[in-house]
Amino acid sequence: MSSDRQAVTVIGLGSMGSALAAAFLDRGHPTTVWNRSAARARPLAERGARLAATPEEAVAASPLTVACVLDYDALYGVLDPAAAALAGRTLVNLSSGSPEQAHEAVAWARSRGAGYLDGAIMTTPPGVGSPEVMFLYSGPHAVFEAHRETLAALGDPLHLGADPGLASLYDAALLGLMWSTLTGWLHGTALVGAEKTPATEFTPIAIRWLGTVNRFLTAYAPQVDAGRYPGDDATVDVQIAAIDHLIHAAEARGLDNALPELLKATMERARATGHGGDSYASVIEVLRNPAGER
Amino acid sequence: MSSDRQAVTVIGLGSMGSALAAAFLDRGHPTTVWNRSAARARPLAERGARLAATPEEAVAASPLTVACVLDYDALYGVLDPAAAALAGRTLVNLSSGSPEQAHEAVAWARSRGAGYLDGAIMTTPPGVGSPEVMFLYSGPHAVFEAHRETLAALGDPLHLGADPGLASLYDAALLGLMWSTLTGWLHGTALVGAEKTPATEFTPIAIRWLGTVNRFLTAYAPQVDAGRYPGDDATVDVQIAAIDHLIHAAEARGLDNALPELLKATMERARATGHGGDSYASVIEVLRNPAGER
Ligand SMILES: [Ca+2]
Ligand SMILES: [Ca+2]
Repeated sequence: MSSDRQAVTVIGLGSMGSALAAAFLDRGHPTTVWNRSAARARPLAERGARLAATPEEAVAASPLTVACVLDYDALYGVLDPAAAALAGRTLVNLSSGSPEQAHEAVAWARSRGAGYLDGAIMTTPPGVGSPEVMFLYSGPHAVFEAHRETLAALGDPLHLGADPGLASLYDAALLGLMWSTLTGWLHGTALVGAEKTPATEFTPIAIRWLGTVNRFLTAYAPQVDAGRYPGDDATVDVQIAAIDHLIHAAEARGLDNALPELLKATMERARATGHGGDSYASVIEVLRNPAGER
Repeated sequence: MSSDRQAVTVIGLGSMGSALAAAFLDRGHPTTVWNRSAARARPLAERGARLAATPEEAVAASPLTVACVLDYDALYGVLDPAAAALAGRTLVNLSSGSPEQAHEAVAWARSRGAGYLDGAIMTTPPGVGSPEVMFLYSGPHAVFEAHRETLAALGDPLHLGADPGLASLYDAALLGLMWSTLTGWLHGTALVGAEKTPATEFTPIAIRWLGTVNRFLTAYAPQVDAGRYPGDDATVDVQIAAIDHLIHAAEARGLDNALPELLKATMERARATGHGGDSYASVIEVLRNPAGER
């Protein structure tokens, strides 16, 4: 159990917490684990993890504790009895929650004398440990820097800023992007599938196309920041004309069209507020103003 | 005007048609152009294009004519008077339209003795000519092979199959994916923007995250083809729990939530039909059955 790597504690051994602990072990970090039901800890113990009998013993074993539990209530339930051990140590909370919950947690940790980072894991458990995947952190820069090397065992650690709510905010924003993209892909897959194209044939072309879409995002981001959306060759008006082809083709094949209908209605709201000749980036103005409000 | 490259004709010189003609000229193809208003042809003439006085003269000048006009009605209006010249030549139609319109066009071309490919341009005009961008074609394989090298001047030519409707079908499916992705990105950009994160700061992380999402698409495509959606660690139930964080965070910042609300309702329909423990790929079953039908 000797190592030049920093000792680390993992609290919560669901499939994600277990993947975190395994990644620390793989990189040679002396790793202590605790879980409400000890059975989840056994496979990790076989790989060299030390099992703590209580959360307090677990927290006391390492300068850094990484928590991955169901939610913030579960976090407080587990760690309140370990508060004395937290003093002078650092807690990195990778449990899912809202920016507001992250703000509460930083106050909770501060009152117990603990350093605190909030984080978000941008992968599923099998991706943990790959340097390609992003782990997002927010909270004091010095706390992040002190543990960056240890956290790099889990994936590429990105520090978003001192505001502890940023990791959860980005998490929500990126998951929203994921669900939108997945659902758009599934709708397209259903459309070409209606004409017997397998998903495995369509998907490589869809992925290649997303590379082009990425170039649109890169071009549109400065437009959003400037609040000006020059349409050039791809205006909202042009997109509205094109989406009817999608809606008709999908309707003819018996698909649910709620998603393209919503996208069209959103574009039409952009046009109605004077953005017909602007780029698609102008749709952000619509998203900032809920329908029915002005 | 001598060249070992095949001569080609471009009909329709909007911003896209002009980009097509310019790409042919850049690669040394003797290029003849025609447009209803001749003024659009002048910049191309200065780059070496030959201006035809009529569509018939234009078509007669090359074995291959590429048309990029407003729609299929405009195509017939322009080319009906040139029908005699089309016999024994090939027409590649890059105008936007539906799969059904592509089927009509192939019959129209056949009755005039012309080879026909339907196509879709997966870029904006500035991207034309880059070997990275995809040009999708459908129609007889032999016709595609005869002109593949010439068409490569425009971008990477992909042949989707003999069914002439496939290019328009893929076009619609891919544009739907684009609008979904763009709107999801704009919603996320608005969300982090509410906490003063610039779009230019969020977008590189969003693009990196889309690389992870691509790996989900690749994993889910064979699930769609098999009609079985093992949930492993990322089930529909887990996504439904997570999307509430997005909805609450966006609501608290005054954003329009129609998109995440629709995504949540779609996931809930998947759960209601027994897919709560399955992967997100199972949502395709919902998209194949419009709400209100069973
Ligand atoms: Ca979090
Ligand atoms: Ca087409």
